[in-house]
Amino acid sequence: MKFAERVRRVAPSAIRDLLRHGADPEIISFGGGYPDPALFPMAELRGIYAELLAGDPVVLQYCPSDGLPALRAQVATRLRRDGIDRTADDVLIIQGAQQGLDLAAKLVLDPGDAVVTENPTFLGALIAFNPFEPVYAPVRTDADGMDTDDLERVLAATPRARLLYTVPDFQNPTGVTMSLPRRRRLIELADEYDLLVVEDTPYRALRYDGAHLPTLKSLDAGGRVVHLGSFSKILAPGMRLGWAVADGEVLEKLALLKLAADTQSSTLNMAATSSYLDRYDIDAHIATMCRSYRDKRDLLLTTLRETFPETVEYTTPDGGLFTWLTFPASFDTTAFMRDVALPDARVAYVPGATFFPTTPEHNHARLNFSGLTEERITQGVIRLSKYLPR
Amino acid sequence: MKFAERVRRVAPSAIRDLLRHGADPEIISFGGGYPDPALFPMAELRGIYAELLAGDPVVLQYCPSDGLPALRAQVATRLRRDGIDRTADDVLIIQGAQQGLDLAAKLVLDPGDAVVTENPTFLGALIAFNPFEPVYAPVRTDADGMDTDDLERVLAATPRARLLYTVPDFQNPTGVTMSLPRRRRLIELADEYDLLVVEDTPYRALRYDGAHLPTLKSLDAGGRVVHLGSFSKILAPGMRLGWAVADGEVLEKLALLKLAADTQSSTLNMAATSSYLDRYDIDAHIATMCRSYRDKRDLLLTTLRETFPETVEYTTPDGGLFTWLTFPASFDTTAFMRDVALPDARVAYVPGATFFPTTPEHNHARLNFSGLTEERITQGVIRLSKYLPR
Repeated sequence: MKFAERVRRVAPSAIRDLLRHGADPEIISFGGGYPDPALFPMAELRGIYAELLAGDPVVLQYCPSDGLPALRAQVATRLRRDGIDRTADDVLIIQGAQQGLDLAAKLVLDPGDAVVTENPTFLGALIAFNPFEPVYAPVRTDADGMDTDDLERVLAATPRARLLYTVPDFQNPTGVTMSLPRRRRLIELADEYDLLVVEDTPYRALRYDGAHLPTLKSLDAGGRVVHLGSFSKILAPGMRLGWAVADGEVLEKLALLKLAADTQSSTLNMAATSSYLDRYDIDAHIATMCRSYRDKRDLLLTTLRETFPETVEYTTPDGGLFTWLTFPASFDTTAFMRDVALPDARVAYVPGATFFPTTPEHNHARLNFSGLTEERITQGVIRLSKYLPR
Repeated sequence: MKFAERVRRVAPSAIRDLLRHGADPEIISFGGGYPDPALFPMAELRGIYAELLAGDPVVLQYCPSDGLPALRAQVATRLRRDGIDRTADDVLIIQGAQQGLDLAAKLVLDPGDAVVTENPTFLGALIAFNPFEPVYAPVRTDADGMDTDDLERVLAATPRARLLYTVPDFQNPTGVTMSLPRRRRLIELADEYDLLVVEDTPYRALRYDGAHLPTLKSLDAGGRVVHLGSFSKILAPGMRLGWAVADGEVLEKLALLKLAADTQSSTLNMAATSSYLDRYDIDAHIATMCRSYRDKRDLLLTTLRETFPETVEYTTPDGGLFTWLTFPASFDTTAFMRDVALPDARVAYVPGATFFPTTPEHNHARLNFSGLTEERITQGVIRLSKYLPR
């Protein structure tokens, strides 16, 4: 049977393989992007689901494809604090931010169009974009996020650039945050080159140090930013809820693509999330998560400093779930994981090569700190450090 | 901003507009494809969600993108009764059968490829396929389903036919069921013309008369049938769960496209559905639904016979949710709904024109009977009948 050209680009995914490793309790995995299940508001949600399922059966019925109106309004209200002054009508409820990547790609990409990304970038985004057969135009990324001087050069050299994908806050995989001057410059360049900007903000609320920077959407006078967010990291990923905010025809087309893709998100989970936002203080809940994750980040970085060779560099993220390790240029983290880390140290991470859209660098690793206990963070780093060449 | 070619094909949807009408309690709507919310197993699910949320927080965490292994195994076991002899590994959990349409289209369709469908066909399928820019090759459809003699002619005349989409059981919108000889012939022709067959079976379990016919998947020696099913009509649509069964590389690619599209379906809803299947007799539940829907179907058909002009024909479905009305050729059901049914009779249905992929016929209407009370079925038909020309 002949598959469409686009499916040739769907390669077996490192993320899926790692989800499998994550299931082996013997292995300490820094691999996932998992929130800490001990922080899920189980009791609150238990009460909410019980009450919903004692009430109107409409919670199990179909509902409008754009999402429950109450939840759309609550998301809009929360976004006003991020400088995004919109109403319920401008919010589309989606299946986690991941679905927003699929819908945005479907919206603008013809085969051969270029997607501009940070270098490295989120693997799940590459997986979402690949079926639409883009080429990639990666942009140099440093401690201040995507380098907009390099972006300008890349755009000048990439006439088919159509979509710019960025995680401005605590980027996946590097943990870095885009500076305000670069945010402003990015929007100017997007206007100049007529790009659709996909601003992916799953970690934005998880800031441990410093003050929030303006969202790209809040700087977007041209209506070209699709702002994606998610309840996965601030409430629970297993409910599969996120949102997309966009303007005018972009939002309207995304909404139709959402309907086409899966009719709607779960009515019951939307009703439960709406009820949670109504009754509980999610900001207090987020503050609790931030305290816990900040401690884990500090523990991870401290243990790395104390046990790893000085030749290994790592980022110091102000929030989010990840730090990014850079080993000496000759060190291959994929081979080391296969040959040493998994079989001997019994530790997993994500080798950095998969996060590079075009030219893999082999001497990086992404470490998650949110999904592990403090004990396992310490143990995992110590175990790994013992096998590192000195 | 330039949108991809494919998005030009995303037209505002009649389904979305009708979902809006359905929300006005003044209007008796035969429009939706809704199960009866009074039959949702609210108490059972209330107990299940309460227990899950009192247990391991893993129910709110990420899980494998193919779906919870226990639920995949339960679906596989149920499908053995439909002659589909597969294991958990062959089952992909998706966001309702609708997502299977998006993934299957993404798998095989290049722009300009032809999709073969019943004529008329499910509007939601057209909405799912349109973004991939196919042309449509509709096949004559009668009381025995898709006419395979006409299918043979259509395939001979359509060199780019790639995907055949069918609802063999109680088709949407007509309610008709494909006969066994035609099922066998369809598979022969699909083999001959190397088609991917998408067998969409959301209503299959809801049979009110006669014996189940073999699924296309059970007749599929060539591994070219993607069998789609859904919990929406047998449990609850608001949980957004369905399944895809396919073979070899087809399944593998669909699984990667599922990961790309939205990471996974809701862990919590999958765990709850799995628990429901474990503890309760869903077949007894389905039997209860069948008794209720059979009565409603009978009431609808009886009231149509007693009140409608003899010039209006309707199908007698052996199951499912719909009957299909055919008015005299000069009668325009879209205009009548806009000008008379909605403003005067205060009744909604789905005008038939939207279900024809290429050449609309204007003298049909789809009537749903599952989502209305018996009283509203009677009232709605009587109200409508009073405004029909005699």
